[in-house]
Amino acid sequence: MKGLFITFEGTEGSGKSSQIALLAERLRALGLTVRSLREPGGTPIGEEIRHTLKHSDANRGMTAETELLLMNASRAQLVRETILPALNAGYIVLCDRFYDSTTAYQGFGRGMDLQTVRQIISFAAGRVRPDMTILLMVPVAVSEERRQARQPLLFKPSGQSGARILRDRMEEAGREFFERVEKGYKEIAAGEPDRIRMIDATPALEEVSRAIWAAVASLIVNWMGTK
Amino acid sequence: MKGLFITFEGTEGSGKSSQIALLAERLRALGLTVRSLREPGGTPIGEEIRHTLKHSDANRGMTAETELLLMNASRAQLVRETILPALNAGYIVLCDRFYDSTTAYQGFGRGMDLQTVRQIISFAAGRVRPDMTILLMVPVAVSEERRQARQPLLFKPSGQSGARILRDRMEEAGREFFERVEKGYKEIAAGEPDRIRMIDATPALEEVSRAIWAAVASLIVNWMGTK
Repeated sequence: MKGLFITFEGTEGSGKSSQIALLAERLRALGLTVRSLREPGGTPIGEEIRHTLKHSDANRGMTAETELLLMNASRAQLVRETILPALNAGYIVLCDRFYDSTTAYQGFGRGMDLQTVRQIISFAAGRVRPDMTILLMVPVAVSEERRQARQPLLFKPSGQSGARILRDRMEEAGREFFERVEKGYKEIAAGEPDRIRMIDATPALEEVSRAIWAAVASLIVNWMGTK
Repeated sequence: MKGLFITFEGTEGSGKSSQIALLAERLRALGLTVRSLREPGGTPIGEEIRHTLKHSDANRGMTAETELLLMNASRAQLVRETILPALNAGYIVLCDRFYDSTTAYQGFGRGMDLQTVRQIISFAAGRVRPDMTILLMVPVAVSEERRQARQPLLFKPSGQSGARILRDRMEEAGREFFERVEKGYKEIAAGEPDRIRMIDATPALEEVSRAIWAAVASLIVNWMGTK
């Protein structure tokens, strides 16, 4: 694997997507080739699965087992169709969520057996491991506030009752769920301190961006030296 | 579980859906309540997954791992949303394909590790096991002939090139694939002779239907005696 694989993790409202855009910009300014992806999704098949997971009218009654399998189906496709070829071609791949999200949300959040969750993750991800993971943390209260301030994610026209507003199914989960997810992320990070860098995402965007750069800079420089 | 769970398996062109309809009719004529389902699908979420698996333009490059996880995501939902409640309510549930299909197609057909396939099946199906499985077998050559004689399964209008005909992704697999599936079904049946009844589906519909009735009749009668 000639490329570099950096994943971004964190609870809702932690600013992952803005930070990924800023880091991608910095890396491109250094003349590096960057590929930005997201989970679930990132491939045509994965985006269909993302729709089933998040926005479908039908999915209110989705079981935890179904959710876990769908997340990993999207991942299995993303790894083989996109991530591995991009790494083999020497890209820096930035991914908005990867398997730590599954451990945190489906494992800790939904309370599924962690060993089973990890077995299914391992089947889906194959031999792909992030070189570094940036874990952006905001207190649950801040995350809740930012989440509620968000624009509705999807306007769906309906023949019967005019325009209806659907919110993301994950984002609608209760506060206790997000507290379990936060606790899960902290346990995961404690178990792999070399890979996972936990960063406080409460400050302004620019300050968080600087902290992320401080965390990844030496990895990038070392990697450039091996090319 | 007060109900009865009977699954139908077999290669393409073995007449599963016609036979399920005939059996359902016979059972209803006896005053029994029957629920007919299919895999993948059978629930709103499962039908979305079925679409991703079978008919999407995007799915030509689907990996074997993605396919296995999607099949089981559909199953996890069907088991918990529909099969278990129907069995608890005393229905006879007839299912067009269940987990033996996954072992035969994804395990034997795609050549995936059988132990891994069985672990993921077990996670998806939970404690649900078929009381009986009718395995309808036709020689690969007959299956191929019937498959090719089928009407195109989907007409999809396209803005660019007029109406286009899409065939089912599974049905487009090559002959060697179907030979591995057939071999797989035979091995599965040999391992569980009490549950799985292998029936030659080459004869006319009515004759096969009689053979199926002979296989299920004592199960139905015994079950009615316990109600």
